[in-house]
Amino acid sequence: MIQPDFDVLTIGNAIVDVFSRVEESFLARHNVTKGMMRLVSEKESAELFEDMGPSTQISGGSGANTAVGVASFGGKVAFIGKVKADRLGKVFTHDTQSSGVHFATPHAASGPSTASSLILITPDGERTMNTFLGACVHLAPGDIDEAVVASSKVTYLEGYLWDPPLAKEAFKKAARIARAARRLVSITLSDSFCVDRHRDSFLDLIRSDIDILFANEKEIKSLYQVDDFDAAMQRARQDCAIAALTRSEAGCVIVKGGEVHVVEAHPVEQVVDATGAGDLFASGFLYGFTRDLPLAQCARLGALAAAEVISHVGARPQISLNAHAKAAGLL
Amino acid sequence: MIQPDFDVLTIGNAIVDVFSRVEESFLARHNVTKGMMRLVSEKESAELFEDMGPSTQISGGSGANTAVGVASFGGKVAFIGKVKADRLGKVFTHDTQSSGVHFATPHAASGPSTASSLILITPDGERTMNTFLGACVHLAPGDIDEAVVASSKVTYLEGYLWDPPLAKEAFKKAARIARAARRLVSITLSDSFCVDRHRDSFLDLIRSDIDILFANEKEIKSLYQVDDFDAAMQRARQDCAIAALTRSEAGCVIVKGGEVHVVEAHPVEQVVDATGAGDLFASGFLYGFTRDLPLAQCARLGALAAAEVISHVGARPQISLNAHAKAAGLL
Repeated sequence: MIQPDFDVLTIGNAIVDVFSRVEESFLARHNVTKGMMRLVSEKESAELFEDMGPSTQISGGSGANTAVGVASFGGKVAFIGKVKADRLGKVFTHDTQSSGVHFATPHAASGPSTASSLILITPDGERTMNTFLGACVHLAPGDIDEAVVASSKVTYLEGYLWDPPLAKEAFKKAARIARAARRLVSITLSDSFCVDRHRDSFLDLIRSDIDILFANEKEIKSLYQVDDFDAAMQRARQDCAIAALTRSEAGCVIVKGGEVHVVEAHPVEQVVDATGAGDLFASGFLYGFTRDLPLAQCARLGALAAAEVISHVGARPQISLNAHAKAAGLL
Repeated sequence: MIQPDFDVLTIGNAIVDVFSRVEESFLARHNVTKGMMRLVSEKESAELFEDMGPSTQISGGSGANTAVGVASFGGKVAFIGKVKADRLGKVFTHDTQSSGVHFATPHAASGPSTASSLILITPDGERTMNTFLGACVHLAPGDIDEAVVASSKVTYLEGYLWDPPLAKEAFKKAARIARAARRLVSITLSDSFCVDRHRDSFLDLIRSDIDILFANEKEIKSLYQVDDFDAAMQRARQDCAIAALTRSEAGCVIVKGGEVHVVEAHPVEQVVDATGAGDLFASGFLYGFTRDLPLAQCARLGALAAAEVISHVGARPQISLNAHAKAAGLL
């Protein structure tokens, strides 16, 4: 087995986030469920944009955020995702590459524009996402660079990829290549509504192909259709080699067969914008994991990265996570 | 004289800001003078973008920022400026209108894209701007809505408008209409390099048509080509009815003939991004002025607004300046 070129490869929807602060009443008026991600058409996106307040635009996308976080820790990381060759696509590409991520997926020359997500931040710091998938629907099996997958220690896939049909095939292809190359495959469930949409195929996949599962409490309960976190955790323990289950301010639980770690959340002065908390938890965890650090330390690195990203607007770190982790005595 | 519909009308370059954090060495490598605004071609802009780090995009433009600030204080305000009918132009329009500013300048259907400014933020919080004027070169006298100018208590013009030749004519037309309607005309010198480019015509204009001059220390010294602030201030005092001269952390000096006020800067915990400090000072001052508040109080409102805007990335306020000023006992 040759030496892997990348610690982590993430595959996900390539999205530019458009943030706006709103009151709770705005969500009610637009019939949007707080904290969730919903898919919207270009027309719905334009209407919502029209009604919301002034915007701030920052590149995002769950898997891409995780990749940027791994790079910020100092890991070698690649990202596969689809933008169009338009202005927003160039911005996404620049922002991702200049963060130290290898990103070489060909841009779509025609079709819908680069994806954007209107992210509504309520006064409590919670985010509610309204995603127009745009060019993401063109991510296809042909975009999966076999050499990159085969040379990455961990291939990390976002559940959101199950929404655009071709991307789902790309996802499966990547998982097959990774398994054939005896690399690890990881998935995040992304969102409890996303789990609702794809429960059975997620369960099949997790039982057959996944080494490391990331999910938050809502998502893992939704996956197993149980109301109790402990019950969901016991099920995940049977289905996955490793499950990293996050619980916001209640910290996280890591299970690996008989090994269980319950790790605190990293303190945060104020939750300014919760966007990217799960994505960055995965960054820290995977960085530690690919450095062969103990699981509890991986979890602490994840908690540290999540705390940084929720302390400001935008789902990508604003400081060097490597330096931050060293200052905190975690590296 | 009919009752004015607007407290303030601002006219300026309509720009979306693209922020990135850089080290001091980045400025040296690109031969850029810190703290200044320089004009770049679309090609230079693309090259600089390529070399800088991840970006955050927030609508800006000096005069537009001032308008948004006046609206945030609760004033009735309009803005005139030119964007193209492209994605960025729509974002600028949305962000400006949804901040409570009347903005109805027709979008350019063809020609260069909406203006953007690459704003490099150094670790000291200073900003250095690289502006591609794009569609701003199409702002023309025909875009000056006579009814809006004639019904605004103060028409505020940014010196940057002197750069695109047609915009300069638009600027002069607006000043003529305002004077004919017996309204007040105000200008900000914008940037000391901008003053260098247009010194003689700025001086002519100030002596003939300007009621309220805004300038920072560098700009007023450049205008009169003197090294001493006091000397520049004495000259301004002779040339303008009112001059509001800002000196960053040293506060500001307001002169109106024999009336002189020396007002402290508003305390700031940390200068995160200096972009918009001058623009928002003008917002507070003009809001107070159009409410007939004493000049020293106008200056304090300006200082309060400037302090808010430099405490975060982006040149537009993130909170209600009206509520903020009330909490500070200034309204």
